Amino acid sequence: MIDLYTWTTPNGRKVSVMLEECGLPYEAHAVDISKGAQFEPDFVKIAPNSKIPAIVDRETGVSLFESGAILVYLAEKTGKFLPKEGEGRAKVLEWLFWQMANIGPMMGQANHFANVAPEKIPYAIDRYMGETARLLKVMDDQLGRTDFLAGDYSIADMATYPWVSVGFEMIKSLKGDIVGDGNNVSRWLAANAARPAVERGMKVPVVS
Amino acid sequence: MIDLYTWTTPNGRKVSVMLEECGLPYEAHAVDISKGAQFEPDFVKIAPNSKIPAIVDRETGVSLFESGAILVYLAEKTGKFLPKEGEGRAKVLEWLFWQMANIGPMMGQANHFANVAPEKIPYAIDRYMGETARLLKVMDDQLGRTDFLAGDYSIADMATYPWVSVGFEMIKSLKGDIVGDGNNVSRWLAANAARPAVERGMKVPVVS
Repeated sequence: MIDLYTWTTPNGRKVSVMLEECGLPYEAHAVDISKGAQFEPDFVKIAPNSKIPAIVDRETGVSLFESGAILVYLAEKTGKFLPKEGEGRAKVLEWLFWQMANIGPMMGQANHFANVAPEKIPYAIDRYMGETARLLKVMDDQLGRTDFLAGDYSIADMATYPWVSVGFEMIKSLKGDIVGDGNNVSRWLAANAARPAVERGMKVPVVS
Repeated sequence: MIDLYTWTTPNGRKVSVMLEECGLPYEAHAVDISKGAQFEPDFVKIAPNSKIPAIVDRETGVSLFESGAILVYLAEKTGKFLPKEGEGRAKVLEWLFWQMANIGPMMGQANHFANVAPEKIPYAIDRYMGETARLLKVMDDQLGRTDFLAGDYSIADMATYPWVSVGFEMIKSLKGDIVGDGNNVSRWLAANAARPAVERGMKVPVVS
């Protein structure tokens, strides 16, 4: 049994999608970051960076934060969605780290300056919208060469889908000149969305 | 033999430090990002995201970008600096992803708005200096519990040192109220700097 501490945001959904894909039994616990629950002492003990998601694996006692590390842990626990060796493994990790270091932080900043910051700062909005559009072009080019980000469907796709599914249409409408037609990303979004485990995982956690 | 495509910046130094720590033979190729060399077609072929570092492993033919993925690849190739299983492995990956998704992108933004952007935007400078200081406090707290980020010296430290060694004193002088005394980070910086492989790796690539 896995305890999943999560919220209704892209980084949390990566892990619920993976748990659903693997058929691992888990219990989701909502950490309401809009009310500061990520700073409560019991959560900080397992997630000292005060960010969701985090897990506790009751079987091994291991607790873990950082969505990318959790995906690798679950992949190695189950033997699924990450090849055990060779170039296939290297490519999955490459695109997983690409999401973690680029798509996540940069889309996060674009959202902050466009929708959250108390003042509209054109320089910052342009910077992060432009970088996100560039990243989506890199992704679209890659998906012109492969079905999924690293060949077969993998944890790299599970990490990227929750972010791109919420941001792609907005960025394409604003920065279509950089993204291009984005047809490969659109095809990939549909292929992810069609997976029953993705559909289930994207609804976690249930909040009233 | 490993071909390393790199520049004089923190993400590149992570990999040269690891290659030096492992004693792996490698040839460093300077990719002058100040002249746009990261957009040249031969480089984009192995690094479609147009960022250094990237490697080609002549032994296996594998090419790879994203510093975190390269560190895991080299650790698994050599059996060094990343435990093969269990909680020790999970913790190294946790702090490696933490660097990749937090310290790197946020310190990078802090540097951009403080030193590179054509206009000084107080909101953005405060946002990224504040977040970097918060991250350094998380790190200082962790290093109060362990000698290195994940227990023993590992690829998580190699990923984090090149960033924190350039930014810690600046952030501490600006945001000491958040970072606190930072004594654990200072101790850890000295322990990393004292390693001969770190000293050698931090000088790569040699540029005229």
